Amino acid sequence: MDSCVIPLRHGGLSLVQTTDFFYPLVEDPYMMGRIACANVLSDLYAMGITECDNMLMLLSVSQKMNEKERERAMPLLMRGFRDAAEEGGTSVTGGQTVVNPWIIVGGVASVVCQPNEFIMPDGAVPGDVLVLTKPLGTQVAVNAHQWLDQPERWNKIKLVVSKEEVKEAYQEAMFSMATLNRTAAGLMHKFQAHAGTDVTGFGLLGHANNLAAQQRNEVSFVIHNLPIIAKMAAISKACGNVFNLVQGTSPETSGGLLVCLPREQAAKFCSEMKSQGSGFGGQGAAGGAWIIGIVEKGDRRARIIDKPRIIEVPPRGSQAANQDSSTTSPAPSPNLS
Amino acid sequence: MDSCVIPLRHGGLSLVQTTDFFYPLVEDPYMMGRIACANVLSDLYAMGITECDNMLMLLSVSQKMNEKERERAMPLLMRGFRDAAEEGGTSVTGGQTVVNPWIIVGGVASVVCQPNEFIMPDGAVPGDVLVLTKPLGTQVAVNAHQWLDQPERWNKIKLVVSKEEVKEAYQEAMFSMATLNRTAAGLMHKFQAHAGTDVTGFGLLGHANNLAAQQRNEVSFVIHNLPIIAKMAAISKACGNVFNLVQGTSPETSGGLLVCLPREQAAKFCSEMKSQGSGFGGQGAAGGAWIIGIVEKGDRRARIIDKPRIIEVPPRGSQAANQDSSTTSPAPSPNLS
Repeated sequence: MDSCVIPLRHGGLSLVQTTDFFYPLVEDPYMMGRIACANVLSDLYAMGITECDNMLMLLSVSQKMNEKERERAMPLLMRGFRDAAEEGGTSVTGGQTVVNPWIIVGGVASVVCQPNEFIMPDGAVPGDVLVLTKPLGTQVAVNAHQWLDQPERWNKIKLVVSKEEVKEAYQEAMFSMATLNRTAAGLMHKFQAHAGTDVTGFGLLGHANNLAAQQRNEVSFVIHNLPIIAKMAAISKACGNVFNLVQGTSPETSGGLLVCLPREQAAKFCSEMKSQGSGFGGQGAAGGAWIIGIVEKGDRRARIIDKPRIIEVPPRGSQAANQDSSTTSPAPSPNLS
Repeated sequence: MDSCVIPLRHGGLSLVQTTDFFYPLVEDPYMMGRIACANVLSDLYAMGITECDNMLMLLSVSQKMNEKERERAMPLLMRGFRDAAEEGGTSVTGGQTVVNPWIIVGGVASVVCQPNEFIMPDGAVPGDVLVLTKPLGTQVAVNAHQWLDQPERWNKIKLVVSKEEVKEAYQEAMFSMATLNRTAAGLMHKFQAHAGTDVTGFGLLGHANNLAAQQRNEVSFVIHNLPIIAKMAAISKACGNVFNLVQGTSPETSGGLLVCLPREQAAKFCSEMKSQGSGFGGQGAAGGAWIIGIVEKGDRRARIIDKPRIIEVPPRGSQAANQDSSTTSPAPSPNLS
């Protein structure tokens, strides 16, 4: 499980807690702070928890940064983290900062809950529908963006993507990672979700497998559709699939929630995700969710079908997004209709 | 404050939480794990909290270690951490591990408390007595031990200390750092402590100053006695006081609690600390506490008097400890009697 759930000595309450820390992956320190915080909170949101009682910040300053660099970057990083915590209805009350060769940023999110406040991620039943609330491809986008300055690497992908498209995808990935999964957590209750996880370091398939493995019922997850930030599948293919993006194991940072919903609720969940607009910074159009598969009877594993449908998710604000918003609408896949 | 105290949405309860992580400072990975855990828990103990509902472990593996080194050291480190957590009546239910240039070890301790379970560290009154529950000098001992292999450094101190004494002091420091402050936390309630803190990175005077600054009453802390691991004051002096040990600002790791107690309770507190034996691994003789100063009316600062009395604390198991245990007994200082 993403979070630990500890029964307390008092009044049937549980302490739900999670920690996560990692190294910066985007250049903008403010956005990096937001992403780190969104990533920590996401483990609570995956259990349908919408509140957080306390956040601690874990930080290291790099010994390789000079005084000026520290004074510019670190306050922005902390500000981004704090702003995202505030958006999550909590605040940062403590933490620890050390000096380290590399910058570290992360946190600890804690909440004390009554039993009805969280959804144990073990209730999927055959017939459920799998929904994903953010597009995949953040790592490919971040790497491709770095390659803009590395001619050898860039030459490998320049036939399938333009510089402009890479910049747009990077922006999209950054905003997506900085978006809290809090709206999705609230809707998990409204639409009676049976289980959920967030998609991070193990990629979609890795986390789907983990989630399938802990189900009470004998079920398996079958994934038919892969919503991916536009052009990232093409880049991944042009690189000889080193990212394993379409194979489902490309790591994501602060990815979306993967939620098991009753069949009759899934489309409504997606539609409400879209209309509520869960995007970062009021960029409501980014809110979205995609039906990506189904729950069958099975042996508690997850798989992606051969030749899954790739849903190209255009960056918000791009021409494609403005012209054809239906591409990102949560239409049930052919396999479900 | 060492910990944050968060009022919860449920039943008058508070979440008390603390995090700490750092880099290894002793060679034995098992002991290092114990020390890291004791150091995290200490922030709760400083508030008189004896329970911990959950512990998360924060860890990084060094990228400079080869496979064999990792396989030998990391399980021992984790085992030490877990064992100390168990001794604290809690268990490690999660955490995060990354790869980093340096090894990191630390944790997050959380507890949900009723108001009577913790002592807010702001109730000192003039006439209170200051008690310290572990001797100072851990950093000096750790450094001196490293200098055994550095002739240039060793030559500076060899006139005041023998190799055997350095090895004994290092052992003493290691065991002391690995000892939980849990016994002291329990006795804070029994003897109606008015405030407490733990002594770590800012040294005795630094933490005493922090504690004084947050008192509700206009008080100041005056420190007359410095219990120090035997010979460490001499080493510090021989090094030209670079450690600032006797000045009170030499950093400690997993140091003791500094507790403000009603005058009539202090000696009983010390005596019970000694008889309960709070030492690591059943080494009961290590249990001890020293009256080090008094609380006066003042401007919320702490100071050490000119020429404080140095109490040489002999390493447990040493000849000195066996022959003359009265040296470590919590006799009130002349200034108090």
